[in-house]
Amino acid sequence: MTDDRGAADLVPAVEETAESIASMEIRGAATIAGAAAEALAEQAREIDVDDPARFRATMRAAARRLHETRPTAVSLPNALRYVLQRMEGEDVEALRRRVVRASARFTRRLEEARGRLGEVGANRLQDGDVVMTHCHSTDALACIEAALNQGKSLSAIVKETRPRRQGHITAEALRELDVPVTLIVDSAARRYLDETDHVLVGADSIAADGSVINKIGTSGLAVNARERGVPIMTAAQTIKLHPETLTGHTVEIETRDEDEVIDPETRAGIGDIAVENPAFDVTPPRYMDAIVTESGQFPPESIVTLMRELFGDGAETPWAEP
Amino acid sequence: MTDDRGAADLVPAVEETAESIASMEIRGAATIAGAAAEALAEQAREIDVDDPARFRATMRAAARRLHETRPTAVSLPNALRYVLQRMEGEDVEALRRRVVRASARFTRRLEEARGRLGEVGANRLQDGDVVMTHCHSTDALACIEAALNQGKSLSAIVKETRPRRQGHITAEALRELDVPVTLIVDSAARRYLDETDHVLVGADSIAADGSVINKIGTSGLAVNARERGVPIMTAAQTIKLHPETLTGHTVEIETRDEDEVIDPETRAGIGDIAVENPAFDVTPPRYMDAIVTESGQFPPESIVTLMRELFGDGAETPWAEP
Amino acid sequence: MTDDRGAADLVPAVEETAESIASMEIRGAATIAGAAAEALAEQAREIDVDDPARFRATMRAAARRLHETRPTAVSLPNALRYVLQRMEGEDVEALRRRVVRASARFTRRLEEARGRLGEVGANRLQDGDVVMTHCHSTDALACIEAALNQGKSLSAIVKETRPRRQGHITAEALRELDVPVTLIVDSAARRYLDETDHVLVGADSIAADGSVINKIGTSGLAVNARERGVPIMTAAQTIKLHPETLTGHTVEIETRDEDEVIDPETRAGIGDIAVENPAFDVTPPRYMDAIVTESGQFPPESIVTLMRELFGDGAETPWAEP
Amino acid sequence: MTDDRGAADLVPAVEETAESIASMEIRGAATIAGAAAEALAEQAREIDVDDPARFRATMRAAARRLHETRPTAVSLPNALRYVLQRMEGEDVEALRRRVVRASARFTRRLEEARGRLGEVGANRLQDGDVVMTHCHSTDALACIEAALNQGKSLSAIVKETRPRRQGHITAEALRELDVPVTLIVDSAARRYLDETDHVLVGADSIAADGSVINKIGTSGLAVNARERGVPIMTAAQTIKLHPETLTGHTVEIETRDEDEVIDPETRAGIGDIAVENPAFDVTPPRYMDAIVTESGQFPPESIVTLMRELFGDGAETPWAEP
Amino acid sequence: MTDDRGAADLVPAVEETAESIASMEIRGAATIAGAAAEALAEQAREIDVDDPARFRATMRAAARRLHETRPTAVSLPNALRYVLQRMEGEDVEALRRRVVRASARFTRRLEEARGRLGEVGANRLQDGDVVMTHCHSTDALACIEAALNQGKSLSAIVKETRPRRQGHITAEALRELDVPVTLIVDSAARRYLDETDHVLVGADSIAADGSVINKIGTSGLAVNARERGVPIMTAAQTIKLHPETLTGHTVEIETRDEDEVIDPETRAGIGDIAVENPAFDVTPPRYMDAIVTESGQFPPESIVTLMRELFGDGAETPWAEP
Amino acid sequence: MTDDRGAADLVPAVEETAESIASMEIRGAATIAGAAAEALAEQAREIDVDDPARFRATMRAAARRLHETRPTAVSLPNALRYVLQRMEGEDVEALRRRVVRASARFTRRLEEARGRLGEVGANRLQDGDVVMTHCHSTDALACIEAALNQGKSLSAIVKETRPRRQGHITAEALRELDVPVTLIVDSAARRYLDETDHVLVGADSIAADGSVINKIGTSGLAVNARERGVPIMTAAQTIKLHPETLTGHTVEIETRDEDEVIDPETRAGIGDIAVENPAFDVTPPRYMDAIVTESGQFPPESIVTLMRELFGDGAETPWAEP
Repeated sequence: MTDDRGAADLVPAVEETAESIASMEIRGAATIAGAAAEALAEQAREIDVDDPARFRATMRAAARRLHETRPTAVSLPNALRYVLQRMEGEDVEALRRRVVRASARFTRRLEEARGRLGEVGANRLQDGDVVMTHCHSTDALACIEAALNQGKSLSAIVKETRPRRQGHITAEALRELDVPVTLIVDSAARRYLDETDHVLVGADSIAADGSVINKIGTSGLAVNARERGVPIMTAAQTIKLHPETLTGHTVEIETRDEDEVIDPETRAGIGDIAVENPAFDVTPPRYMDAIVTESGQFPPESIVTLMRELFGDGAETPWAEP
Repeated sequence: MTDDRGAADLVPAVEETAESIASMEIRGAATIAGAAAEALAEQAREIDVDDPARFRATMRAAARRLHETRPTAVSLPNALRYVLQRMEGEDVEALRRRVVRASARFTRRLEEARGRLGEVGANRLQDGDVVMTHCHSTDALACIEAALNQGKSLSAIVKETRPRRQGHITAEALRELDVPVTLIVDSAARRYLDETDHVLVGADSIAADGSVINKIGTSGLAVNARERGVPIMTAAQTIKLHPETLTGHTVEIETRDEDEVIDPETRAGIGDIAVENPAFDVTPPRYMDAIVTESGQFPPESIVTLMRELFGDGAETPWAEP
Repeated sequence: MTDDRGAADLVPAVEETAESIASMEIRGAATIAGAAAEALAEQAREIDVDDPARFRATMRAAARRLHETRPTAVSLPNALRYVLQRMEGEDVEALRRRVVRASARFTRRLEEARGRLGEVGANRLQDGDVVMTHCHSTDALACIEAALNQGKSLSAIVKETRPRRQGHITAEALRELDVPVTLIVDSAARRYLDETDHVLVGADSIAADGSVINKIGTSGLAVNARERGVPIMTAAQTIKLHPETLTGHTVEIETRDEDEVIDPETRAGIGDIAVENPAFDVTPPRYMDAIVTESGQFPPESIVTLMRELFGDGAETPWAEP
Repeated sequence: MTDDRGAADLVPAVEETAESIASMEIRGAATIAGAAAEALAEQAREIDVDDPARFRATMRAAARRLHETRPTAVSLPNALRYVLQRMEGEDVEALRRRVVRASARFTRRLEEARGRLGEVGANRLQDGDVVMTHCHSTDALACIEAALNQGKSLSAIVKETRPRRQGHITAEALRELDVPVTLIVDSAARRYLDETDHVLVGADSIAADGSVINKIGTSGLAVNARERGVPIMTAAQTIKLHPETLTGHTVEIETRDEDEVIDPETRAGIGDIAVENPAFDVTPPRYMDAIVTESGQFPPESIVTLMRELFGDGAETPWAEP
Repeated sequence: MTDDRGAADLVPAVEETAESIASMEIRGAATIAGAAAEALAEQAREIDVDDPARFRATMRAAARRLHETRPTAVSLPNALRYVLQRMEGEDVEALRRRVVRASARFTRRLEEARGRLGEVGANRLQDGDVVMTHCHSTDALACIEAALNQGKSLSAIVKETRPRRQGHITAEALRELDVPVTLIVDSAARRYLDETDHVLVGADSIAADGSVINKIGTSGLAVNARERGVPIMTAAQTIKLHPETLTGHTVEIETRDEDEVIDPETRAGIGDIAVENPAFDVTPPRYMDAIVTESGQFPPESIVTLMRELFGDGAETPWAEP
Repeated sequence: MTDDRGAADLVPAVEETAESIASMEIRGAATIAGAAAEALAEQAREIDVDDPARFRATMRAAARRLHETRPTAVSLPNALRYVLQRMEGEDVEALRRRVVRASARFTRRLEEARGRLGEVGANRLQDGDVVMTHCHSTDALACIEAALNQGKSLSAIVKETRPRRQGHITAEALRELDVPVTLIVDSAARRYLDETDHVLVGADSIAADGSVINKIGTSGLAVNARERGVPIMTAAQTIKLHPETLTGHTVEIETRDEDEVIDPETRAGIGDIAVENPAFDVTPPRYMDAIVTESGQFPPESIVTLMRELFGDGAETPWAEP
């Protein structure tokens, strides 16, 4: 059942952004979020109405249009929630000002996020640390880069991260930073935890119960890090916080192409086998020491407070008609 | 410093066996052990001396000759210890009889070992169980095969086991037994432990402190199996018991070719990185529920008793001159 | 020492509600809380004073009157705190409006609470899950009912819950929902955790340190659920949050009639024995995965934030004279 | 396929004992074991043959006849194994002597077993200890009685042990010993572990992997005892050691009448529910501090050594024809 | 690079306080914090400017002057943050009023803090409890004193706390309160945890990730308390919350004089050895049951929320020029 | 009730040795054990009787005489048990020969014990390891010395070990071996476990349930070593195995002079306090990775097998009259 209220007043910028997100011309968690926030600001600036209720309805319609393009993305609804939750005021001018300001603040936070969380994560690292990585995460890399900028010397043990071996990308990025790299297969992690000072991973998304959803293998690594007495942190911008989990929703785990695990010829040679290729797994909060964001570090059990502060209590979708 | 005492009386069979072991013509833990035991029996049968002391010295010389071919193998010294420890008697005939009988018993045990341990391991499995495997182990497979023969229905989750992907061999063997197979990458293990009833691994060798030395990745899997509440067993013939560990020696972990982890071209593209490729890791006894052998099942903490029963207390090498 | 300030202006509705609560005519956590909030609204609406200070004093007096009826209940002071904490304003009209509005919001939350928390809890369950229950909890049942409404298929393992066997009530309620039920004695729980996907319990009250006070046996079940790798959640409306625990108070555990444990004849036959029958026990937060409320789900370690948001910091009783 | 070899020479005592065991005229683990050992001795004493092979065959036939009466009992095959394993010698007289002596030693051990294990268990208790019990075990009671005889003062927290409430029997027995008793429901165990110095349970049987099979609820209690830091021991005579588990067999858990859990009328009132009533559960060795036997105390992980010492390696049934 | 903006308008009270802090005439976490807050109030009261911007700049300058005296103290920046964060308003009068009021509220909180947290901690203790202490903490003592005032009877096991044996001070203070004291060496702690009902420690500072930084030995004690099932709490005023840790900074651990560990003569007699004497260690939140403050009790994982509420998000130093 | 049978034939050497042990002229576990074994040999050599029964009675009398001098020592009864258990034979000459031989073997084992266990322990250490020590143990030192002789380079973190600071003795001994030493207070152990590769302790005695009785503080250290993932081993000659524990006896823990904990003046200054000074504590087997003896290494859970092999099943005192 479509909800068209307010749709009549949408400005072209909203539609263009929506189409670019839908066509994946605009992609990447941060890019999508920034574009959506900007589109809302544009809508607020250009809309020509007097009635506060109509202004609000139009803004919600803009948000709905943007949201429907990628309904399962995490960063997109976060951007919409951040802006719409701050849409308060008695008259259109006040509402407009608030929306524009919220959009600007969201965008500025976004631009600074990686740098700021990098600083936070770097502060947890000591000079001389050996850091173990899993998969490839620009947020995790930002921590290492910031630590290097702080004058700390680091080296890295890089898990290859089957099936797609994103460890190779991490290794290359670390070498460009002149960080000594030792590459290992995923199964060798527990053996090398004895030589590791800190495990550092990114996140696909983070749930309200403190769980970290990240590349398959993270949870097994976290369990072993705890058993070996090695601290482990997750680096994740706040746009990774998954507001739907506030209401108990679990994060759906993407299943990827089976050919990533085994090429068809080899598989045919083995015989009739099933292949499972989940992209992510779920690390319970009790195996993670800290989540590092641009808003500072949090024990995973407290991240729900930050989620509610930034994006509301998740009980309602602010783009829905009341 | 060479010890030539007794060497003069060696029969050709000993030398031939020694050369075949050295040249790896004879290979595989069980084959080497059987050949060595047989060579000792041949030596005992054919030696033509009257002096018990000279008989003993010659037998020790034969054992030394065989031992020096592969000084770090586990099964070879086990065969030599088993036979020489049972060389008792007052005269040459008694000594000869004991050696031949010990050799025969060792060989018979060896032939029956896989079948018997398969029975033992199978008894631990329940009809309908989902079994998770790591790497490829004929001893582990023997358990599954025996369980099928007992009329139990099983299915398997097979870890690919990077870097060499021996999981493919296991998958193929299981398919030949008509066992349904699901192949996963190693990192997906913790996720699929929730659907697993029993983890089943083999062993490269087993130490007196109850540690299981097995394919890299076993220890991390065992830690996660315990955390998920899934039982785990090791299937290993007694020739895998490592008597040197009785005296505290740790098992040296083989490091394999780095190209197994990453091919040279890809590596060159990444830049100047180190690669580590240890073949095995060490699982502490507290994470293993049972070790299954042809002599029955044992808690890992008790395997030392079986080692001492079969191969002596490890304090002396029975092939050394007194 | 009685504190009579403000008592002169109390309207009859307050006294009537107080008496009904005291006589247990009004009973049940939610019913008591709703009646108390309504009585405060009535008082605010009907009071005829000009002096804001006098208005405040009267409202506090009303709250005191209501509170003294059941000083150890949890939901009653929560209702009073919720309303009085929101009593702000410069003049009587503003104060009145705030009180009436806070009362209305509290009552509306209360009416919707079970349905909303049911949704949240249901979102944590997967289609096909086997759920284990302990005792009888309408909040826990609400989660199951909501999951069924979401189209999920569930089955249940119901612990009988000695001594009063409230498991029978749960079993009957589940059967009315057409959920397949397996009844077990409490001691069989660990055995059946191997077949359980989620443990679901209610709460008598919840403490600021994240502890869950619930029917005796919950903590032992939670410890075993963690050991078996099975997730466990508590379903509890926010009126169960125990604000006195914010200041370190421990929750007093009711001891019930010994005859619930053993009938007098049997006991006499055994001889002179003591019998202990505590009604509840305390589950530490580290053994509980989530607390599900109508305000969303929380790790137990974060519930203190919600308590402070809803009911203040517990440092003062807002019905006391300043 | 019947194996009749040797059956012709069976003496009436064997047949009579077999029939009494089959008809449950002879019942109870110790009584059965003693009767079987005595029947073998009788057979050995009375048999009138000259051929050692025939003597052996007859003894095996006697054992087979006895064994087939209750093939799943634990103590019966233990008695047969104990005696037959010691049947060694070159001539009939030697064989006869050995059998009679082994039978006598087994019987004497049996008579003294409870008293001796009581002493051992008592030595682990301290004056003033509060002991928690589960179900009813004469072996466990023997420990308490011996401790009292050592002049120690003890008190007991007795779990009622649903469904059959054998805790009442334990409570009565303890009162006869003048031990102060506090009766609790099973679910209250964790709460009262804080006041408990030692948990003391019996065993239905004990497996070679160190698992303790005992009344349902034992494993959950053991997990909680470990979590609360309270030591726990199992009191079990060696006739409870389950030799078939040496070869990996798991112990089959008896399922008892559903009416023990809920009476039919109540059940009918609830609706169409399943009821499960397993009699025992399995406690892993890592949650048990010691197993106390008449041969001394053992860590559960070492009990396999005692099993092999007393009853052989389990690989063969000594009553089978070779 | 010095930042002199605003320094011209500083009143003498600021300079005097700064000098007294620098010279350690003013010392102790609470005393320093109170003096700094008071100096800011004095500055606000006496400054004679009209321009709000200049007022703000001056206040920041005052804060900078005070901060630079002891840049690594915890309570000093907390005082400054508390006051400056509340400096809001459109004109100088409003700003002045807010600063003075914030300073007053901070000072009043400070004065009441020990008493209030004592109440909170006391509420967690039960009549008859045996409390184990480590080092000397007036906050921890306040909990015991408050419990005594509540009419509870307590006794104490006091760890001597090498190297400086502050346990002696604690013992003396407890004796003055008539609490029975048992003194033990630090190594005896695990043995006496079996007789302990609650472990109670103070804190040097508390980090945003929930870690407790306290006298060396606290973390080892906490790990053992958890293993023994004994609850443990930290008593710490909110001025101990370390806001820099919000941005990931780790707390630098002071290393003290080696002569505290061993006197020079004894050391010379031993030979050329290194001596390490760290003053504090870090207890992870998962080993601490609660942090008790004057604002109530918190699970360690939630303390970050209180830090942010009181002192901001740590992202900026409010005394820096914008 | 004295048992004088056999006492008439005692030779002077027995009485002299008994007196020297009683007067503590002969002291130290190994010295006492050696002297006792030698005295038994002397008795066997010199006794002039024909009746085997009388010979046996006299030997038991000699053992009784020796045993009564220090009834709670561990090594003394071990020596007596070792020799008497091997006293077998049909005539006096055979008995004499067996006793003399057993005594000689026991003495030789004793002489070689430290060296052999040192080798075993050294084999567990790696070149470059940092070893943490507690108290002073010549057995533990033997491991380090042997490792140095194997060409390994080690350094040590030495806990001072309050109250008697035996760490100073260890530090001095290690310096004589040129091992770099860092001295810390006991409370700093957990902090330095992060830099430790192996924890190495001795034992006062070892119990049949695998517990290690050692200097107070060992158990707390072991719990932390496990939590930090650091391996820990106990070095103990087999004369430390406590045979009475085979029958469940717990090891009595010596309480030492309170002045070791606090000097009387300081104590008087504090007030009326109790002081507890237990000399040892008990480390459960699950926190110890291996026990290293001259008979090889054992998981603690298996040491009972070695105890029974060397010293019998503990059920009887072989010096008692039958």
